[in-house]
Amino acid sequence: MILGIDLGGTKIAYAVVAPGSATIVARLQTETRSSDGAAAVLARMIHDCLQVCASAGIHPADLTGIGIGVPGVFDDATGRTLFLPNLHGTWPDVPVAETLNAALGCPVWLINDARAFVLAEAIHGAGRGFDNIVGFTLGTGIGGGVVIDRELYLGIDGTAGEFGHQTLALDGPRCGCGNHGCLEAFASGPAIIARAQAILGTGAAPRLAQSIADGHVFTPALVADAAQAGDDALVTLMDDVYAAIGAGVANVVTLFSPQVVVLGGSVSNLGEPLYAAVRTVVQQRCRATPVNRIAIVPALLGADAGVLGAAQWAFHRQP
Amino acid sequence: MILGIDLGGTKIAYAVVAPGSATIVARLQTETRSSDGAAAVLARMIHDCLQVCASAGIHPADLTGIGIGVPGVFDDATGRTLFLPNLHGTWPDVPVAETLNAALGCPVWLINDARAFVLAEAIHGAGRGFDNIVGFTLGTGIGGGVVIDRELYLGIDGTAGEFGHQTLALDGPRCGCGNHGCLEAFASGPAIIARAQAILGTGAAPRLAQSIADGHVFTPALVADAAQAGDDALVTLMDDVYAAIGAGVANVVTLFSPQVVVLGGSVSNLGEPLYAAVRTVVQQRCRATPVNRIAIVPALLGADAGVLGAAQWAFHRQP
Repeated sequence: MILGIDLGGTKIAYAVVAPGSATIVARLQTETRSSDGAAAVLARMIHDCLQVCASAGIHPADLTGIGIGVPGVFDDATGRTLFLPNLHGTWPDVPVAETLNAALGCPVWLINDARAFVLAEAIHGAGRGFDNIVGFTLGTGIGGGVVIDRELYLGIDGTAGEFGHQTLALDGPRCGCGNHGCLEAFASGPAIIARAQAILGTGAAPRLAQSIADGHVFTPALVADAAQAGDDALVTLMDDVYAAIGAGVANVVTLFSPQVVVLGGSVSNLGEPLYAAVRTVVQQRCRATPVNRIAIVPALLGADAGVLGAAQWAFHRQP
Repeated sequence: MILGIDLGGTKIAYAVVAPGSATIVARLQTETRSSDGAAAVLARMIHDCLQVCASAGIHPADLTGIGIGVPGVFDDATGRTLFLPNLHGTWPDVPVAETLNAALGCPVWLINDARAFVLAEAIHGAGRGFDNIVGFTLGTGIGGGVVIDRELYLGIDGTAGEFGHQTLALDGPRCGCGNHGCLEAFASGPAIIARAQAILGTGAAPRLAQSIADGHVFTPALVADAAQAGDDALVTLMDDVYAAIGAGVANVVTLFSPQVVVLGGSVSNLGEPLYAAVRTVVQQRCRATPVNRIAIVPALLGADAGVLGAAQWAFHRQP
């Protein structure tokens, strides 16, 4: 058995799966509470690993391995995190693999969470049966990953596939990363909310204002709903967002010429208007690529992609 | 022995090399004269193959294979060209591999010329000794290619690596391909010449005007020289060109995280001002990639990269 873990900014998910399988035999989800500090989070993770293994009827030392998807940058050689921007303290030089390995007695490998998502979708989800797959995680940040010949393509320190930080506008808006004109600066969840907030301030989005007054959570989906319900200024906003995501997908198609493009993350749940716009933009922009032979599709594994990809990575990395 | 051929819009180059080697034992170069029609060009190519083989002391039927770099799109399964924009008639459905194979008695494989350049530089040139290499051909058009784990990554129909057709400006200038804001629309040789021409028309480039009056050929290098000599409007133009190439390289670095980026083609001969600008832009834009571990370097094989890459491809494809 393999244990896949998805370490997120708010939640940690655990799943025990058979090697190479997408069937979860035991699962657990807990709060991250990263303000407790890395050591406390790691101690709780060890406890939770023991618990989920027990409910699967297996001892941790008998695991083939543990794969952990982390939301940021890490050192593959040491299994230490380097920079997890959404966790309190950003986890510089935290010995995650070493700590869990010492406590649980099985090998531990880290993987970037977006890469884990793409690996899971490539092997078990929307890319199943194809060789070359790319994937986007469209959410609070925009991440991505690349599978070539059914294997994750990592680049230096696993940094290949940072699709959110491609430049789409030479003098575009400043991104959280420090660059200007990144896809993420146009189309991340917070970027959509910030632009909608500015429109709310002008009074040009009455339906959105009403929804928020009614107690609905202010999300990109709420903005898209208000656009569809008749807030014209939000229609323009959402068209801009779809155009940016479309151009970002088009660039990845032009550079990688993959068979499948998988879209996941909360913003990908905006559904058919997003997919229709992205497919149109790709058709318009990718003149050198046979785009009719490239599928642009939603992710299939939902919230399980993170744990399944992490487990798949441990399966792949076992000696 | 292997015969590598580089079929260009104006010239055809031939080289006989030992399998896996970069040492050319016989070479030949002739005019393409594509206005004669594809059949006449193919007949001359057969004649030239016989001649270069004779000067290497080998019979064509004893060749391991022939690799042909073509400037455009082809069908790998049939060895027919589909669209070579710089050749008269654009060569739709021309049975290049079949015709040469029937006349010469050895296997023939086609490869895109930019991909051939990158393959040669990866194996024998600036990328030698590294696993993951990307390359740009900066010239009349802007092409590219990707080598992963020392093998060419092709994508669908060999279309991966079209670095010139990535979007850098959502509403940018129209590109020859039909898209808007492509790198090629900012930084190809013809794009540089067209912008310099417009500046000449305003009288704001007296040094360039004098150089042309003196009989110098109007090239990007001439524009760069006039900028350096004091035509300030051309300094701004060249800064824009370098900024666009830098952003194009930055996007490829962000997506592929390669170990080496090789720049070739006539525009890459602009030398240190280009490289300094590209390295600065990559440092500014690539915040998620360890750019200090990525070399951005000039091609090493010069005009031989085309024939060497084509030969390397035939070596790779032999059964």
